[in-house]
Amino acid sequence: MTTATQSHHRETLQRALTAIRERSYWSAYPENLKAYGGEDAPGSQSPADGKAAFDDYLGKPFPLRQSGTDGEVAGERSPYGIALGVTYPHADVDTMLAAATAAIPTWRSAGPDVRAELGLEILHRINARSHEMAQAVMHTSGQAYAMAFQAGGPHAQDRALEAIAYSYAEMTRHAPQATWEKPQGKRPPQRMTKTFTVVPRGVALVIGCNTFPTWNSYPGLFASLVTGNAVVVKPHPGAVLPLAITVAIARDVLADAGFSPDLVQLAAEQPGEGLAKVLALRPEVKVIDYTGSTGFGTWLEQNAHQASVFTEKAGVNPVVIDSTDDYRGMLANLAFSLSLYTGQMCTTPQNLLVPRDGITADGAHKSVDELAADLAAAVDGLLGDDARATALLGAVVNPGVLERLEKAPSYGDVVLASRAVTHPDFPDAVVRTPTVVKVDAANRDTYLQECFGPVSFLVTTGSTAESIDLLRESVRDHGAITAAVYSTDDKVLDATEEAALDAGVALSENLTETVYVNQSAAFSDFHATGANPAANSALTDAAYVASRFRIVQSRRHLPADPPVTP
Amino acid sequence: MTTATQSHHRETLQRALTAIRERSYWSAYPENLKAYGGEDAPGSQSPADGKAAFDDYLGKPFPLRQSGTDGEVAGERSPYGIALGVTYPHADVDTMLAAATAAIPTWRSAGPDVRAELGLEILHRINARSHEMAQAVMHTSGQAYAMAFQAGGPHAQDRALEAIAYSYAEMTRHAPQATWEKPQGKRPPQRMTKTFTVVPRGVALVIGCNTFPTWNSYPGLFASLVTGNAVVVKPHPGAVLPLAITVAIARDVLADAGFSPDLVQLAAEQPGEGLAKVLALRPEVKVIDYTGSTGFGTWLEQNAHQASVFTEKAGVNPVVIDSTDDYRGMLANLAFSLSLYTGQMCTTPQNLLVPRDGITADGAHKSVDELAADLAAAVDGLLGDDARATALLGAVVNPGVLERLEKAPSYGDVVLASRAVTHPDFPDAVVRTPTVVKVDAANRDTYLQECFGPVSFLVTTGSTAESIDLLRESVRDHGAITAAVYSTDDKVLDATEEAALDAGVALSENLTETVYVNQSAAFSDFHATGANPAANSALTDAAYVASRFRIVQSRRHLPADPPVTP
Repeated sequence: MTTATQSHHRETLQRALTAIRERSYWSAYPENLKAYGGEDAPGSQSPADGKAAFDDYLGKPFPLRQSGTDGEVAGERSPYGIALGVTYPHADVDTMLAAATAAIPTWRSAGPDVRAELGLEILHRINARSHEMAQAVMHTSGQAYAMAFQAGGPHAQDRALEAIAYSYAEMTRHAPQATWEKPQGKRPPQRMTKTFTVVPRGVALVIGCNTFPTWNSYPGLFASLVTGNAVVVKPHPGAVLPLAITVAIARDVLADAGFSPDLVQLAAEQPGEGLAKVLALRPEVKVIDYTGSTGFGTWLEQNAHQASVFTEKAGVNPVVIDSTDDYRGMLANLAFSLSLYTGQMCTTPQNLLVPRDGITADGAHKSVDELAADLAAAVDGLLGDDARATALLGAVVNPGVLERLEKAPSYGDVVLASRAVTHPDFPDAVVRTPTVVKVDAANRDTYLQECFGPVSFLVTTGSTAESIDLLRESVRDHGAITAAVYSTDDKVLDATEEAALDAGVALSENLTETVYVNQSAAFSDFHATGANPAANSALTDAAYVASRFRIVQSRRHLPADPPVTP
Repeated sequence: MTTATQSHHRETLQRALTAIRERSYWSAYPENLKAYGGEDAPGSQSPADGKAAFDDYLGKPFPLRQSGTDGEVAGERSPYGIALGVTYPHADVDTMLAAATAAIPTWRSAGPDVRAELGLEILHRINARSHEMAQAVMHTSGQAYAMAFQAGGPHAQDRALEAIAYSYAEMTRHAPQATWEKPQGKRPPQRMTKTFTVVPRGVALVIGCNTFPTWNSYPGLFASLVTGNAVVVKPHPGAVLPLAITVAIARDVLADAGFSPDLVQLAAEQPGEGLAKVLALRPEVKVIDYTGSTGFGTWLEQNAHQASVFTEKAGVNPVVIDSTDDYRGMLANLAFSLSLYTGQMCTTPQNLLVPRDGITADGAHKSVDELAADLAAAVDGLLGDDARATALLGAVVNPGVLERLEKAPSYGDVVLASRAVTHPDFPDAVVRTPTVVKVDAANRDTYLQECFGPVSFLVTTGSTAESIDLLRESVRDHGAITAAVYSTDDKVLDATEEAALDAGVALSENLTETVYVNQSAAFSDFHATGANPAANSALTDAAYVASRFRIVQSRRHLPADPPVTP
């Protein structure tokens, strides 16, 4: 790293530290696809560069040399129907954890400034390769290209930087050294010098998910690394490539700076190996970050006692629909939210709570059936053109999603049917539009569990007050990452805000423009809260980083009188 | 509260916020016993006032009116041999938790400033009653009066204030509101207003210990309360009174300010009731603070999955003795540390690690036997006079300590025998001096478990290098709250510092004056680290408070153009 680069990274970190306090709009990494690869962005890949880099991985072993490699793991199949044929090194667990542990003391000694700087350098290099990452994320998660680029690239990088900023703030909130001088009345004061050292917890395990391999993994990865831990990245077997690229870049940066590359290692697993479970119980592993099913998340929380465990699990995201003065805007916004990435987001609304008697829209009454028909029309309009539809929907990530979609009609009245879409470029891709099923609020077993994928419920309730109670209760008992409300009545908004505080879920109110409930902006929106069963922490805040390290102090006397300079 | 009082509390909080950053010497509450009750301290008790207030509790029900009281709990017997005869209300668990839960929303709405201010007011009133608290702590913990006053009074209050300051800093580290404006190229920007609310976790359970009923409970109690939680205080059955007084004061302050007193409740238990276990598994309980045995602490960590659990458990505090240029100072310091409160501190040194070949003291060689004899002489000198001895030793807190002391001679060569001391004022008090037993480092089963009380081991090792390795390994595997080293060799100090960082324990170096390894100063020293098995968190730091609350946000659009003022 040149001095200019170091100074640039330091400026970026300072700006990020301001951003996490102010929480107004800021981004370090441009989300515009065209901002990369041109003359204004020397060193970054163009879309064609990214495609070429991606193609170069296909059909061969991924270029990652890790100590303790004892085999090869077959890689992913793209949700777009093409075979990737990439293979990954498999590591012996003992060797991997020994290498990670051995790398820690030097990394600890480097201190918060150097670690943060190298975290920023890793992000800088990842950012330059965002088009390559977009291909990798697209062909593992099934996201459409533009979304894979933004969510898998700059947005994930922003979230990583946010985690670095929080970590840096917490590591440096105390003086690293202090002189302590306690008066003793007429006797000389007690005088001591004290040193406070940031000490990492040990090895941190990051367990990636299939749908957002980078966005959901980066905060934990970078927070743990920058606080001094060694990180083992266990990708989802269906989404290895984005994290393999990430790990390779991180190792290069660390090695270039004279640190052990084993501070970041990839733990690709054989089919059925259950490597996450094995790693999660190892005594060396002191921090675990996980995104995925409630079942395994709960298992981690209840069994990995030696570690601080951060989980994001399933939820039933509710939307209270009471009234609106922008019916078109509301329908368009909801249609987009239900369709984006085929509803395969932890933030997609699941339960649309609407009074049986209907709602008020633009001053007029709308029955539930009218609302259902209008919402269906809005989705059909949005997704009418196949090419445009696939750019929004992406592809179905795995057969489980398809199974749930096919089972959906059995739950109630289908008010919006799913249809198959043909992808113009990838004929083997499985692309589906979302479905909406009307159910009565009494059918609790149906809608009070997460139905991950493009299945939402129009839940009819006795009144908006009952809808709000249901929001509170369903989030408190079953979890949610997002919640929303549509109302023209301030009392309804106030009551919904109170319910959201009680249940502990972020609330979006009257979204009728181009901000969607699915989206959380780094440096401003907190993703998840940690206050309901859908996640045991926010990603990212102080509580998310503060227990990834400890402060260890030493103290010794200073002479009672200041020493005389020789 | 008057405006002047509020403003005074705000100034104190601001000063505390500076102190936790700088970590140099500061204290809010004078530790000098004479600073209370005189003309300079109007409103605070004199020693006589405190004694009268304490005497007034004896032989009758403690004046605490809590909802859901369903019985009476018989109280403590003083380690000084006198019967207290105080009884406490027993609460029905369902009623207690329902009352706590019901009190939370209003407390949440009050916001961080009001909550911090009331936390400070509670401390202010407790501080004025420090002499009463000293009596209560003395006659439950067995601490001598001066120590009960300082550790149970102002020092505990300082630790509480430190916890409030950390909590306030973390709650206010983000803007409570933000305007978010994202550029959209040539289109109007997306504009939103966002609100970020501090939301408590729920009910916080504080499980007190017998030896430091206030000092170890206050940080958790005040951190949880000020972050918006309702707190249930489950005192040790042997040390109810200090926390009953605390709870009563807190309830008065809350009620005076118009909040529900049920935000702080006492959960005194019947003999054998196992109330801590019952409360710890209740779904309403989301935060648990515990000080006590490793067995129950580990049970909490492994079973109270619904809560964030903060534990301080047992450890084997090591001291590496290599060499000194102040032999008298070292011996005096160690003698004091072993004797203070009859070694019944979680910070008392247990394992004195010394090379079999002896050490260098003031330039001359000292054999292990000479060191042992000199240390024994230092202890005998310190405790030779019974009145002076009891002022340092206090009384044996419970029969378990006495049993371990009586068993000690069976472990090895007794180089310092314990003796019984007669207390001049309390003839029935059980007072004992500490014992030191010499064992070889090979006898690992003997010294690698905590022997709580006045039993320490002089552990002979092959070399100082082996002593340092033993420090690292024993702390890593068995835990420690404190560690110390004596050496004139910078290389030894450096190596011990490195071992302490590896194992994650605070290190005191060459203490030969009047600072003792047992003592940690609020606002400067961190107590415990959370990095070794003796505690899963420090008390107090950011990690200790940050997960006691969550941030819940709401967001809504702002009009694209600023609204015109009517």
